[in-house]
Amino acid sequence: LAAGDAAALTAAFEPLHAADIADLLEQVDDETRHALVRLYGREIDGEILSELKDSIREDVIAALEPQVLADAVRELETDDVVDLIEDLDEAQQDTILDALEASDRVAVEQSLSYPEYSAGRLMQRELVVAPEHWDVGQAIDHLRAQEDLPEQFYHMILVDPRMRPTGYVTLGRLLSAPRATRLADLAEESFRTIPVMQDEGEVAYAFNQYHLISAPVVDADDRLVGVITIDDAMAILDEEHEEDILRLAGVGEGSLSDGVFATTLRRVPWLAVNLVTAGLSALVISQFEETIAALVALAVLMPIVASMGGNAGTQSMTVTVRAIATKDLTSANLWRVIRREVLVGLHNGIVLALPLGLLVALIFGAPMLGAVIGAALVINLLVAAAGGMLVPVALEKLGVDPALASGVFVTTITDVVGFYAFLGLAGAMLL
Amino acid sequence: LAAGDAAALTAAFEPLHAADIADLLEQVDDETRHALVRLYGREIDGEILSELKDSIREDVIAALEPQVLADAVRELETDDVVDLIEDLDEAQQDTILDALEASDRVAVEQSLSYPEYSAGRLMQRELVVAPEHWDVGQAIDHLRAQEDLPEQFYHMILVDPRMRPTGYVTLGRLLSAPRATRLADLAEESFRTIPVMQDEGEVAYAFNQYHLISAPVVDADDRLVGVITIDDAMAILDEEHEEDILRLAGVGEGSLSDGVFATTLRRVPWLAVNLVTAGLSALVISQFEETIAALVALAVLMPIVASMGGNAGTQSMTVTVRAIATKDLTSANLWRVIRREVLVGLHNGIVLALPLGLLVALIFGAPMLGAVIGAALVINLLVAAAGGMLVPVALEKLGVDPALASGVFVTTITDVVGFYAFLGLAGAMLL
Repeated sequence: LAAGDAAALTAAFEPLHAADIADLLEQVDDETRHALVRLYGREIDGEILSELKDSIREDVIAALEPQVLADAVRELETDDVVDLIEDLDEAQQDTILDALEASDRVAVEQSLSYPEYSAGRLMQRELVVAPEHWDVGQAIDHLRAQEDLPEQFYHMILVDPRMRPTGYVTLGRLLSAPRATRLADLAEESFRTIPVMQDEGEVAYAFNQYHLISAPVVDADDRLVGVITIDDAMAILDEEHEEDILRLAGVGEGSLSDGVFATTLRRVPWLAVNLVTAGLSALVISQFEETIAALVALAVLMPIVASMGGNAGTQSMTVTVRAIATKDLTSANLWRVIRREVLVGLHNGIVLALPLGLLVALIFGAPMLGAVIGAALVINLLVAAAGGMLVPVALEKLGVDPALASGVFVTTITDVVGFYAFLGLAGAMLL
Repeated sequence: LAAGDAAALTAAFEPLHAADIADLLEQVDDETRHALVRLYGREIDGEILSELKDSIREDVIAALEPQVLADAVRELETDDVVDLIEDLDEAQQDTILDALEASDRVAVEQSLSYPEYSAGRLMQRELVVAPEHWDVGQAIDHLRAQEDLPEQFYHMILVDPRMRPTGYVTLGRLLSAPRATRLADLAEESFRTIPVMQDEGEVAYAFNQYHLISAPVVDADDRLVGVITIDDAMAILDEEHEEDILRLAGVGEGSLSDGVFATTLRRVPWLAVNLVTAGLSALVISQFEETIAALVALAVLMPIVASMGGNAGTQSMTVTVRAIATKDLTSANLWRVIRREVLVGLHNGIVLALPLGLLVALIFGAPMLGAVIGAALVINLLVAAAGGMLVPVALEKLGVDPALASGVFVTTITDVVGFYAFLGLAGAMLL
């Protein structure tokens, strides 16, 4: 296909959704992508650009002719244009801004003036509003007379004379009510506005928690400045989850299409931190060199205690990080949940220490060695449960993202405690 | 507050959204919750019940008077009723079904006849449809004449005479078009139907990928049977993410309000599996007992190599599991991504082996020991990168959820390879 037949390519892409074309462009290698963009160039529309990941998007935009690019962005809503250009370099930003109509350009520039990851960056400026004293007939006539309605809208926002939103009416109610009904009588009960400076994570949480479909955005004076729709909130929710998962694993953000060098750079820092903490474990072990020299079986068994602690700590930590993110963990239930985790740790410890201790006692023919590893396991699982809870809670209180940093601390704690408990007990009891 | 003043409690709950009241009921302890439900009982509505987590919901429903429960569920849409009752025991299910009006009961029972986690369970049965040949005026008059419109709807679905959906019109377009416009001329380009048996995860993916707001659900004969709206898809997306994160950490599903015993039961299996794989590592080490006895420093250093491999493997694995879940990893880019991961592993290995090797050489005054640990680290990070990619890809091909099982395999591989490479090299080079 990529042998040069532009018409065939256009025909093949015709039935595909923009999001699928974007995925395809992301998944092929650089050369194929450049060939595709050259061939398909004139057909690339704003929606495809919107769907592309940042790193690929820059590449594609640079390859497009200015006229094609201008046509592509002009058909987008302002919130999509903002999303499109906020990560581009300045020269590319200016090219796109120049291509917009004057009113859209002002709207986009205003959105860009709000901080990154704020509601102001997410909102679209195209609004469907009505004075609160209108009736249904006036509203419908007004809508029919408008030329430039947003592509998607689900509510008519009611405003007072100072442009402060006072409620909204779903289009369903507007459609099904008699023309003489006052809009104010149709307004939804569950009306929420979003402050323009609110963090996008909070916005997504509000949409998910309160089942919002769209929500008006207001400035510091409570005046209406934009509207956020659920599809944008859903995309943010998806991104936040992705961040959480990747951060828990110590992988920075990035995409599969990034190069080897960029990926290495993102992953090395966490591994370097782990090298330091692993050094700490080595330091602990080195204090027991004589004990190990006297009984080499200890070297064979000690990773078991540490690895079990690491796993139990990760379980406890993950549950806690999630609960913090979903706001399920609050001061109302913190102590109850901590008590539960510690009890779970104790139970896990006892349940697993028994078979481990028995096996070790049998295999090594040394009952005391079995008792020592069992006791060390119980201690380490208790500490893992408590640490897995307390570390993320403490980081959250200190204003550090618990997903980002908890892992290092928790596994350091369980490694150090695991080696110390096992080797220390062994030194005291067996030699 | 919980001292018995029902009026004060009702007043305090008045400004709260149902979702917040549900969160509050989840976060307090059992006794407080029972007291709250007793006091607030008559005011508990269907929405609050919908928002509760399964385990708490059963508890609350059991505590409600039958009449209150009947009133509460009667005001819900059918999809919410289905969600409410699908996890209840049969006696509770019957109580609720009996409380519904006959037509709603049939709809709920039909939904329940579809498999769990299918589109059929998610959809609501309340539909807003119009024959495809109608014009805007007919559609609006029809809507105004309807008594029982769904609470939320965003599209009018066009159907042919055999009830097969042929397109849909957004309410915004319906409102802004002249009365004589044919509905078919207003239909959206991006029209997608969802098969009733489709997995809910696929449904959520389609909503997120194609920015759907609502989508008609069709049966095997392409006939319209229901509609799914984005708020339900968003809730599913949220649940699937939660599952992925918890599975990656080896924690079964469950909630913070579960008891100690239930939580222990969920976490022990993974820890038990880890005990077996840790035993495998111990077996590897035990083959080098003589080497360790000759040079105890090896016991001090060996956890470093294993732990670094475990971390690098987890990074690679998490990226892969995510990419599979988001469908970013396909046969089109699989080999390219594998090559990248292996190269990243090699680079990480070299970058980190140099300082580690130097430090070990200096501290232990043994250049060869530094060279051995450096070489072992490079080998283990290479294996970690490849294993972290290949294990989830292979599990996916075998039909096993990669989030659930990858962790065990990957850390087993890195532990075994780490100990083997380090101790084996040391035995060969140093003794």
